Amino acid sequence: MQFSAHQIATLVNGSVEGNPDVMVEQLAKIEDASSGSLSFLSNPKYEQYLYTTKASVIIVNEDLKLDRPVAGTIVRVKNAYLAFSTLLELYNKMRLDKTGIEERAFIHPSAKIGKNAYVGAFAYIDKGAVIGDNCKIYPHVYIGDNAKIGNDSTLFPGVSVYFDCNIGERVIIHSGTVVGSDGFGFAPQENGTYTKISQIGNVIIEDDVEIGANSVIDRATMGSTIIRKGVKLDNLIQVAHNVEIGKNTVIAAQSGISGSTKIGENAVIGGQVGIVGHISIANGSQIQAKSGVNRTIAEEGKKWSGAPAAAFNAQMRSQVVYSRLPELERRLEELEQLLTKELSK
Amino acid sequence: MQFSAHQIATLVNGSVEGNPDVMVEQLAKIEDASSGSLSFLSNPKYEQYLYTTKASVIIVNEDLKLDRPVAGTIVRVKNAYLAFSTLLELYNKMRLDKTGIEERAFIHPSAKIGKNAYVGAFAYIDKGAVIGDNCKIYPHVYIGDNAKIGNDSTLFPGVSVYFDCNIGERVIIHSGTVVGSDGFGFAPQENGTYTKISQIGNVIIEDDVEIGANSVIDRATMGSTIIRKGVKLDNLIQVAHNVEIGKNTVIAAQSGISGSTKIGENAVIGGQVGIVGHISIANGSQIQAKSGVNRTIAEEGKKWSGAPAAAFNAQMRSQVVYSRLPELERRLEELEQLLTKELSK
Amino acid sequence: MQFSAHQIATLVNGSVEGNPDVMVEQLAKIEDASSGSLSFLSNPKYEQYLYTTKASVIIVNEDLKLDRPVAGTIVRVKNAYLAFSTLLELYNKMRLDKTGIEERAFIHPSAKIGKNAYVGAFAYIDKGAVIGDNCKIYPHVYIGDNAKIGNDSTLFPGVSVYFDCNIGERVIIHSGTVVGSDGFGFAPQENGTYTKISQIGNVIIEDDVEIGANSVIDRATMGSTIIRKGVKLDNLIQVAHNVEIGKNTVIAAQSGISGSTKIGENAVIGGQVGIVGHISIANGSQIQAKSGVNRTIAEEGKKWSGAPAAAFNAQMRSQVVYSRLPELERRLEELEQLLTKELSK
Repeated sequence: MQFSAHQIATLVNGSVEGNPDVMVEQLAKIEDASSGSLSFLSNPKYEQYLYTTKASVIIVNEDLKLDRPVAGTIVRVKNAYLAFSTLLELYNKMRLDKTGIEERAFIHPSAKIGKNAYVGAFAYIDKGAVIGDNCKIYPHVYIGDNAKIGNDSTLFPGVSVYFDCNIGERVIIHSGTVVGSDGFGFAPQENGTYTKISQIGNVIIEDDVEIGANSVIDRATMGSTIIRKGVKLDNLIQVAHNVEIGKNTVIAAQSGISGSTKIGENAVIGGQVGIVGHISIANGSQIQAKSGVNRTIAEEGKKWSGAPAAAFNAQMRSQVVYSRLPELERRLEELEQLLTKELSK
Repeated sequence: MQFSAHQIATLVNGSVEGNPDVMVEQLAKIEDASSGSLSFLSNPKYEQYLYTTKASVIIVNEDLKLDRPVAGTIVRVKNAYLAFSTLLELYNKMRLDKTGIEERAFIHPSAKIGKNAYVGAFAYIDKGAVIGDNCKIYPHVYIGDNAKIGNDSTLFPGVSVYFDCNIGERVIIHSGTVVGSDGFGFAPQENGTYTKISQIGNVIIEDDVEIGANSVIDRATMGSTIIRKGVKLDNLIQVAHNVEIGKNTVIAAQSGISGSTKIGENAVIGGQVGIVGHISIANGSQIQAKSGVNRTIAEEGKKWSGAPAAAFNAQMRSQVVYSRLPELERRLEELEQLLTKELSK
Repeated sequence: MQFSAHQIATLVNGSVEGNPDVMVEQLAKIEDASSGSLSFLSNPKYEQYLYTTKASVIIVNEDLKLDRPVAGTIVRVKNAYLAFSTLLELYNKMRLDKTGIEERAFIHPSAKIGKNAYVGAFAYIDKGAVIGDNCKIYPHVYIGDNAKIGNDSTLFPGVSVYFDCNIGERVIIHSGTVVGSDGFGFAPQENGTYTKISQIGNVIIEDDVEIGANSVIDRATMGSTIIRKGVKLDNLIQVAHNVEIGKNTVIAAQSGISGSTKIGENAVIGGQVGIVGHISIANGSQIQAKSGVNRTIAEEGKKWSGAPAAAFNAQMRSQVVYSRLPELERRLEELEQLLTKELSK
């Protein structure tokens, strides 16, 4: 894929300064760019690089004033960051433009595949499953009986979606993620063994959700585990049975949410957080990485930290004193000795 | 799948009150049920829902007294919870009733497949592997050379079992779980590099074990990593080489057990727990979520918490004071000032 | 596979004492060995087992003095541990000696497969991908467009390598690991939703790296996420976009490294560690299991512990006082009462 500065300016509605015919074939940060790269400058902090970069084409804000000549070709646009983002997206769309049903895919005769979908070889689409229009189902994806995938969704290689699960539109799920495995439900018996409680519910993933690689969303015991519209989950996340995650909530890698917990909307949850079961987390909560939340958070929009999680500021204050604990103990001892001495006088 | 109230009563040995011909086609909680649902009432706390539920059929305990008429059909049984569990299990068995060897499965000529087994397309069963009777081997499962799967076991899509591993009867393993990957063993060299120590042991998983999705059980360096009968492991769990987990122990998601550690029987281990290598954990130990266990627990049946893990009650007491640390420091300062003032008089 | 004591001695350049024709067919620890096993004695601590072991052949150091007769056949070598390691490696190489391209593999016409490579059935090798000589690509492996795998590398079943990623020579990647999934990058919008930032970079994995099962290495936003030569990563590890991990660094299971962080060379990082984004960790740092590192570590070769991570010794001291906090509080109260009483006199 090669583009001229002129073609790029046309794509992003910009104007060219310098050679309009110079070609670029990759995208790079301004400080790392080599010849043949397209780059951008948005943050004034990086302006110095404009004069040293080897990028062949640089997109800049239209009002940028140049101090001295620039080696590469400049493309001026209203918002350099947005223009570059648009090109990034376009670039990836072109790279990932797979279509058609490959011969070695397995599609059950009763399954339905939407228009213009991609189904890779070794993908397995079981009885009664429905794949929407423009979906990309990569190789080694498994879609169980009666599962539904909405239009324009992408499932990368090795995703497994168990039977009856329901995935919305424009959803992206990365490799190895499992949707709809059994919740962890066992009834203890008198002799110390456990009896499995059948998990007959499903998972519902609403529109515009993205889920990273090797995460797991368990199906509900009954009813549904629900990931609401616009939620973004990172890699290696555990979502237990009957959990509900509210709209536009973002959760970083390796966090885990235990059964039946309800997370509000627009929450931001760091990495390696653990949240116990059967509680609720208010809208807009911000939970620091590695926190352990063991009770309901009712107040909206607050910041939490620590294990067990406490209000962020209180936690920070305790943390600081924690680092001085040996000194604290010593001071206490000195006081004790001083007082004992004083009292014995 | 549709059943009449009469058919359900027959299945669970109950008696019908109301229309025996009303049909149900799904199972739901009494508070969520819609028309066409089968539900149950066991916990008296939910009795109010009996009079408002839209469930078409409700299973109740035989001694339940009704205050007023109920819209749905009642099925009376000895134990409503048990009867409903039986139906849940039956329901899932019917849904997951796959059999036969699909044409596009790969089965090495020297592998043996038991009677009535299911082997999905794109499952790969390698040289000398043995699959027991009634097993379900879903698509994208890999069974390595000479691995053995006991009767009535289910491996969901994308499970990988490396060569020589040995899995018992009635074992359930969810998607993406890896059994028998190399243990993490490297010998440091003088120049700072590491040399791999070949891991030639295997993994033994005994009968009635269930393992969640995307967990990893590493093979032993020599000998076996062993998961004993009746153990239940959740999702995203790490079990390192040469670990042994005792009978009926239950471990929640994202916990990790380091090499050569031996966990006793009937232990209950929460989520995101870490346990160091080369220690042992006594039978019946209860370890709270997010604990970090760094030494042997010799006493049976105790509760532990924190990182490093300490006796639960002691940990709780320290935790409470931790939240008051800034206040403690302030009180200490006041005492110091008071005493200094006093002594300077 | 069966070998005589004589054959083994030849392989490891040793001399036989006892029956040179006795056959062994497995490898075992000296304390666990049964008849037909080959074992070794290196650590004098285990010398007692030499006289009781059932191993048929035991490799020992050439200078070992026997106190009394040994039942098995002895093979004397310069370094028993090294000789045994060599045999372990040989044993596994023989077991895993797969070659050839299986008929049901999918290989895009434009992909290149090196000499003597193994490509299992249901492996999928996409457009322009390059697989080096002697590589082993197991079933269910996915290699995306233009990805490159260097000579002598092994990808176990179910590994996914996204487009454009670049893997070196002699690399081993275990089942279910994902290389090149999108970094977790989203731009918050005014209405509370998030817009995806396209991740157009790649992942570079240099030579002699080993990665465990079900780990995830995200591709860079731009540029590359880089795993340097000789790095060893365990299972279920998260490596975010634009991270760089320095040569010969070792990271234990379930640890996570956030975006753009740079880890030095020869660091040793325990399990379940979390490291925040945009920081750097000095060469030779040792970070204890479960630590949470939230700021740059600039000093080389130091030991760190806790969350937030602090110098190991300081952390240990605070930890000890933490366990005494209830007592500390009580002592403080006594002082307060004593002083109040004293002052009121």
